[in-house]
Amino acid sequence: MTTPQSQPILPRIQSPSDLHALSEADLGRLAAEMREELIGVVGRRSAHFASNLGVVELCLALHLAFDFAKDRLIWDTGHQIYPHKLITGRADRIHTIRTKDGLMGYPNPAESPYDLFMTGHAGAAPSTAMGLHAGDIVMGRPERYSVAVIGDGAFPSGVVYEALNNAGDQAHGRRYIIILNDNKMSICPRVGGIAYYLDKARMAPEYKRANTLVRKVLPSIPLVGDQADRLLQQFKDAVKASVHGGMIFEELGFTYLGPIDGHDLKTLNTYLEKVKAMDGPILLHVLTDKGRGFEPAERDPVSFHAPAPFQRCEEGIIPLKTSSTRAYTNAVSEALYEALRRDPKVAVLTAAMCEGNKLQKIRDAFPERFFDVGICEAHAVTFAAGMAKAGARPVVDIYSTFLQRGYDHIFQEVALQDLPVLFCLDRAGLVGSDGPTHHGSYDLAYMRPFPNMVVMAPGDAKDVAPMVDWALQHDHPVALRYPKANLEEVQRDPQPIELGQAEVLEWETDGMLVALGAQVPDCLRAAERLRADHGLRVGVINARFAKPLDTATIFKALDECGFVLTIEEGALMGGFGSAVLEAANDAGRSTSHVRRLGLPDRFVLHAERDEQLAEVGLDVDGIVARALELAQQLGITGELGTSSAATRSVG
Amino acid sequence: MTTPQSQPILPRIQSPSDLHALSEADLGRLAAEMREELIGVVGRRSAHFASNLGVVELCLALHLAFDFAKDRLIWDTGHQIYPHKLITGRADRIHTIRTKDGLMGYPNPAESPYDLFMTGHAGAAPSTAMGLHAGDIVMGRPERYSVAVIGDGAFPSGVVYEALNNAGDQAHGRRYIIILNDNKMSICPRVGGIAYYLDKARMAPEYKRANTLVRKVLPSIPLVGDQADRLLQQFKDAVKASVHGGMIFEELGFTYLGPIDGHDLKTLNTYLEKVKAMDGPILLHVLTDKGRGFEPAERDPVSFHAPAPFQRCEEGIIPLKTSSTRAYTNAVSEALYEALRRDPKVAVLTAAMCEGNKLQKIRDAFPERFFDVGICEAHAVTFAAGMAKAGARPVVDIYSTFLQRGYDHIFQEVALQDLPVLFCLDRAGLVGSDGPTHHGSYDLAYMRPFPNMVVMAPGDAKDVAPMVDWALQHDHPVALRYPKANLEEVQRDPQPIELGQAEVLEWETDGMLVALGAQVPDCLRAAERLRADHGLRVGVINARFAKPLDTATIFKALDECGFVLTIEEGALMGGFGSAVLEAANDAGRSTSHVRRLGLPDRFVLHAERDEQLAEVGLDVDGIVARALELAQQLGITGELGTSSAATRSVG
Repeated sequence: MTTPQSQPILPRIQSPSDLHALSEADLGRLAAEMREELIGVVGRRSAHFASNLGVVELCLALHLAFDFAKDRLIWDTGHQIYPHKLITGRADRIHTIRTKDGLMGYPNPAESPYDLFMTGHAGAAPSTAMGLHAGDIVMGRPERYSVAVIGDGAFPSGVVYEALNNAGDQAHGRRYIIILNDNKMSICPRVGGIAYYLDKARMAPEYKRANTLVRKVLPSIPLVGDQADRLLQQFKDAVKASVHGGMIFEELGFTYLGPIDGHDLKTLNTYLEKVKAMDGPILLHVLTDKGRGFEPAERDPVSFHAPAPFQRCEEGIIPLKTSSTRAYTNAVSEALYEALRRDPKVAVLTAAMCEGNKLQKIRDAFPERFFDVGICEAHAVTFAAGMAKAGARPVVDIYSTFLQRGYDHIFQEVALQDLPVLFCLDRAGLVGSDGPTHHGSYDLAYMRPFPNMVVMAPGDAKDVAPMVDWALQHDHPVALRYPKANLEEVQRDPQPIELGQAEVLEWETDGMLVALGAQVPDCLRAAERLRADHGLRVGVINARFAKPLDTATIFKALDECGFVLTIEEGALMGGFGSAVLEAANDAGRSTSHVRRLGLPDRFVLHAERDEQLAEVGLDVDGIVARALELAQQLGITGELGTSSAATRSVG
Repeated sequence: MTTPQSQPILPRIQSPSDLHALSEADLGRLAAEMREELIGVVGRRSAHFASNLGVVELCLALHLAFDFAKDRLIWDTGHQIYPHKLITGRADRIHTIRTKDGLMGYPNPAESPYDLFMTGHAGAAPSTAMGLHAGDIVMGRPERYSVAVIGDGAFPSGVVYEALNNAGDQAHGRRYIIILNDNKMSICPRVGGIAYYLDKARMAPEYKRANTLVRKVLPSIPLVGDQADRLLQQFKDAVKASVHGGMIFEELGFTYLGPIDGHDLKTLNTYLEKVKAMDGPILLHVLTDKGRGFEPAERDPVSFHAPAPFQRCEEGIIPLKTSSTRAYTNAVSEALYEALRRDPKVAVLTAAMCEGNKLQKIRDAFPERFFDVGICEAHAVTFAAGMAKAGARPVVDIYSTFLQRGYDHIFQEVALQDLPVLFCLDRAGLVGSDGPTHHGSYDLAYMRPFPNMVVMAPGDAKDVAPMVDWALQHDHPVALRYPKANLEEVQRDPQPIELGQAEVLEWETDGMLVALGAQVPDCLRAAERLRADHGLRVGVINARFAKPLDTATIFKALDECGFVLTIEEGALMGGFGSAVLEAANDAGRSTSHVRRLGLPDRFVLHAERDEQLAEVGLDVDGIVARALELAQQLGITGELGTSSAATRSVG
């Protein structure tokens, strides 16, 4: 029975089991309502959009075919989780998505039993789903299906292949299903051999006639000799794969089905039921359109991957706010552009983040020295090491959190060889609404122990270009980290960048704030307030280097200042503050008057970056509070009311 | 002209260019002489063996076809580098391989310009070679060939696929060549879909007759319609690939050649010359026998992968020493076996290290709960996370250094989800003759900052089983690290393992040695010597946990002991000692009398583990020296000659 037009359907879907009561027409209307909800979300704030529009029918079909109260569903990466959230009891809260205390923009087991893993990094779903199924078997529940939905954009990621290869070996006869959600896109247009391959597979329906033809003709080929039967089978397999396009997957041991139309619920249902009845491992190739159902997004899925808030109007869409602020990402990109212009040895690598890292201008101006390798950070790092060995000056420009995928290659291929690769670690620190999967919390801790590695962070906008230039002249590996934040400028003639040298911005002796990275301007504000409100004369050092440390300057602060507070937007364990403690301790110096401010030993949930900084005490209030607490502990009292020279202004 | 039988050929080969003067017969004799040298090496010490025997002809053929004074050659992993060393001016030093100040058992750029990268971890070569070629192009040297030789055992590693996928896109027309050295083996027999696939490709020569046949028959198939030509081409491609077996590589954009006999110099030469004349990317599939030319190794390539020293005799081979000592690896494996026996939820995963991790007994007794995923640590970690989510208790048993490949997945799939995966980090610390690529130096620093992670290390043999058992009861992720060392036992009734609790072995107040891991017995010896020789009363704490830290016990030591020396076999930056400094500092305690002993900020070269420990001061002498130095700095003097109670004996 079809629902009257006046009654919306989505509010009635409290759990996926409610879907079974819907007629075909109702399901179509539900899909339309879900798309309206998604458009409503990006009317409020920046959110993943085009990918979510693309999986509405696929999401409905999966929940109709399986019972994910017991079966296992993993959405790879997880940014396409919104439709799934809409039909698993969270439609009424979808407007809160990506806000503090609201829904997470990725799967979140704390929100729903239908979300199994909190994810954000691409490519892991086939492994996770395979592990879930292996676990279910160990636990005596082999009847549960395990389904991984993974986009073609994630396919350059090695761990996808690792799972496929392993499943081809170990998942025979198992209820293990991979849905390849093929929208011909990564975040940027996808790249790599597999992309060409999938393009070919997409065309497969045209060849269906051939299949029939070949089946008729094959038996008439006059094979002779004792190998004839085997040959014939081999030959047939090849033709079959050629016709349906899934040769790679078939060769790895999968049964390949598709490609099918991912917006046709009936077709999806037919194939999913078929898949359920088959022995795994199975790969079902589904074609979807990124941005489906919203024309501007269909036309330009890159811009609509995670657009700024907008509203629809007659003419199309109107951005709700235009941002004229420049971010660290822009400044680094511009410095790199200049470096490429100046030095023909410089090359830039990205892992499918041309847009995120603002590298479009570099891509267009220097195509022969710009490499988008796709989502495969391990390869990107290793490739860069090879380039450096050949004498070039490669820059690996990757978000801090995603570079974690290349950890071992930073160790073996770069640090161990002492090669001059420049790592630009974008979005180091807290990233705001993307949340815990995307914070760049660990880079200071993971880069620092590698011998030969220099670890640095700009204190403000004026540090950026000089640091990039310096790093490209330094004949050893360099990690340059900077936050997802707008640029600020400290009014000064910056001291030139020199290896392991900090910059003293204000020298005062009640206390010293030693900041690594973009908290420097807030430290100046905090120092100002500590003087104005509490009479404490507190200086500020722009540390610049976490490794090597400017021990001369820092030890001077230890000697002369009542307290020393280190500040960093990174995990406290093993980070910059620990480097200070280590160096001081090695030198036999007391650190009783030192404390460290940074990210605590827990995951920081999604919220605005400002909210997150406040939560962990890394804003001006937090710095002031920590400094005061420390001063009180140490018995340092300010002279409230005494005049003092004006402090350096922050632009 | 052929060399007289009486004159050995190898000593005349000072560089690869000398090969060109040799006749075909001489090259054959040279190959035989090289094999004798390899057998001579393992007559002296444990070394990689079977893999080196397998690539003798391939190595000669490569150096004949290319000029690696300018072209680029990367041997993947690098343990099959010995023949290459023999003909690049190092034959006279091959007897020193893997010894202190001798040749390294892996490529080493410090030894020869023919070694480009110091490697040891599998799978990176295709990326490195691609990067080298891209760098050569940027540097204006596109005529240089880049050649990566990679074993089939490395193919489950995702980074191999990442490079292949990227090369299929970006290396068109480039001089980029991958040699697939297919010996049907990883270190253990290889696993995964790609293994079956390659087995099929191996059989391809049998189908050559079919190729001819098909070529004759195809044109007679009556195709109709306007798609006919395209169909026919598609069909022909499929048959071609089916016949020669390289479909996967062809689909990714490679030209596939082979498989060919990797022990036939003439065939190798023909194909390599052909490859040089073709546009890349090219994959040449070469079949070799691991252990070739030494019958016991051909028969049992697993045992002869890196055998203990032996000598040949009439009957076969005689081991030169039989080791009856038990190592930490054995003890962990035995504890895991018991856990599997007791608890049906426990499962064990390895990444092609069944032999290295001594898991054969577990593999044979519990095949349904033992998973060898091949060399793909990222997948292993993620797979384990899935199992844990399903309620099983997976154990990821991987060398510390190789687990680095799974860093991001430890973060996202395990720590972020707070899943009870037990990581057994074998060979944590210094590993002896394998050298810098294999040391497990960074695990303390990289595991510690992940929220939810427990990091522990047994202080002696008696800690092992209780720690494994405890970890399998703990409902959160645990990293258990232990060295490549023989077991020692401290005579005592061990205190039961409790979360974040250290074990005080001796409490003395002149100073305290706080050791994490297997240095505990040496610390007791050091304490004994400090008392006997210097009259210092120094206690010993078996720290057990790096996270969470036993702050109660450690702070008590800070309060009561003249000095505190932390000891760990791991990188000092961000390690256990740093954890002590951090905790004390957070609590506002002085650490002026604390110092840290551990691995310095440089790479430690190959040597015996004892030699390496001595070099970095982590042996008894080093601990005594550091403690004395610290005592002197702090003005702590012992009462030499005063009697004291007998210290705890070390068994």
